[in-house]
Amino acid sequence: MNALIVFAHPEPRSFNAAMRDEAARTLAEQGYSVTVSDLYAEGFEAAAGPGDVLERANPERFDLGAEQLAAAETLAYAPDIRREIDRLFAADLLILQFPMWWFSVPAILKGWIDRVFAFGVAYDFGRTWDRGVFRGKRAMLSFTTGAPANVFEPDGRSGDLERVLWPLHGGVLALCGFSVLRPFTAWAVPWIGDQGRAEVLARYRRRLQSLDEEEPLFFHRLADFGEDHRLRPDVEPGTPAQHRGPRKHL
Amino acid sequence: MNALIVFAHPEPRSFNAAMRDEAARTLAEQGYSVTVSDLYAEGFEAAAGPGDVLERANPERFDLGAEQLAAAETLAYAPDIRREIDRLFAADLLILQFPMWWFSVPAILKGWIDRVFAFGVAYDFGRTWDRGVFRGKRAMLSFTTGAPANVFEPDGRSGDLERVLWPLHGGVLALCGFSVLRPFTAWAVPWIGDQGRAEVLARYRRRLQSLDEEEPLFFHRLADFGEDHRLRPDVEPGTPAQHRGPRKHL
Repeated sequence: MNALIVFAHPEPRSFNAAMRDEAARTLAEQGYSVTVSDLYAEGFEAAAGPGDVLERANPERFDLGAEQLAAAETLAYAPDIRREIDRLFAADLLILQFPMWWFSVPAILKGWIDRVFAFGVAYDFGRTWDRGVFRGKRAMLSFTTGAPANVFEPDGRSGDLERVLWPLHGGVLALCGFSVLRPFTAWAVPWIGDQGRAEVLARYRRRLQSLDEEEPLFFHRLADFGEDHRLRPDVEPGTPAQHRGPRKHL
Repeated sequence: MNALIVFAHPEPRSFNAAMRDEAARTLAEQGYSVTVSDLYAEGFEAAAGPGDVLERANPERFDLGAEQLAAAETLAYAPDIRREIDRLFAADLLILQFPMWWFSVPAILKGWIDRVFAFGVAYDFGRTWDRGVFRGKRAMLSFTTGAPANVFEPDGRSGDLERVLWPLHGGVLALCGFSVLRPFTAWAVPWIGDQGRAEVLARYRRRLQSLDEEEPLFFHRLADFGEDHRLRPDVEPGTPAQHRGPRKHL
């Protein structure tokens, strides 16, 4: 089994780096062959653009999806993208390790998604969700926060964590077919002291030791939706983002 | 009144660029002085890192928040950050114009948030939400999608749009004190033809002409929360992310 840890922190001595190392060590002990993509150290380009493809399908006008699709068959992408695609497809388990910045991933990790999860490679017409490219593989978010856990309770100041994570859990990982495991959250890292951080690493270690027994999170199958892209009337909404209640904002 | 349009598309002839131009023209007609931050054209750096500050507070170990805070008083940031901070603080109205990629902003725009919304500048201890730095100013997302609107209905395949947008609406804009206006969405742009796109621009134009009469979206005040960071028992959850129902994933 292969594991890929995508690491997105600028500081090699950060607690995120300690989590990366704890995961690499623990997974290796479990028999995984572990690869780390260290986005900052490897100088990964964050901004998707014309340089992503070796040859332009349309030199007049750059459309990211169209260019990604045209380059898909021969994987004619920039070397850093090509390297990450190879790592991604070799992985049975994907861990994204990052500090939560602004309720999401750091820009460099968003860029890894924008550029590596290319149209025609990581998803395609009809190849999404339970028919997605990465079905049978598992993925997990592992991240640090500055805030304590209460802030992300359902009635917390920042809103329910599972709704905050939907764009990543649903919109990226499950959409591409991954079985998504519960996230691992290291709460309030700057405020818990060395002892607290050591306990978080121990908790992470135990979690990783039993990862293979976990049930993934629930997402709807494509068959749950009608031709209008909405849940069939007999299907009960089962995720943090789908519901039949009133809207609050829109 | 000053408006800042932050534009995050790599192609100058994209429909996003047409939306940017429509907004700039219409707002100028309304008497706004309009500035455009063209992140790709200006070569804005997406990845937050040690280069963001002119002098390191801690040369041994890079912590983004700590370094941002130490540099805040004299705004001792890299020139591209300093320029964007000046533009941001001069603006009464902020529009983020982008293609929705992976249920969020492109990496270059996430990087603009990571780097420009600096700790000590755009937020601070106790200066968040209704006590936020940008209170009294308005902000709006304006974006294109490849998918049709049904996909982002409450029971749609991608989940309710207002939950998808929470990390941006709540986690960035409202958290920093902005009055957040309803987003403007250009749906299924690649599939609607020239006529359809012209109609979207006309609809956007009408929207911008009456922007000053709009009521902003609702977010909870800090006083709605107890010391445990959770809604007081007598406060009814009123946003897309706060609720008292059961969780689905966590």
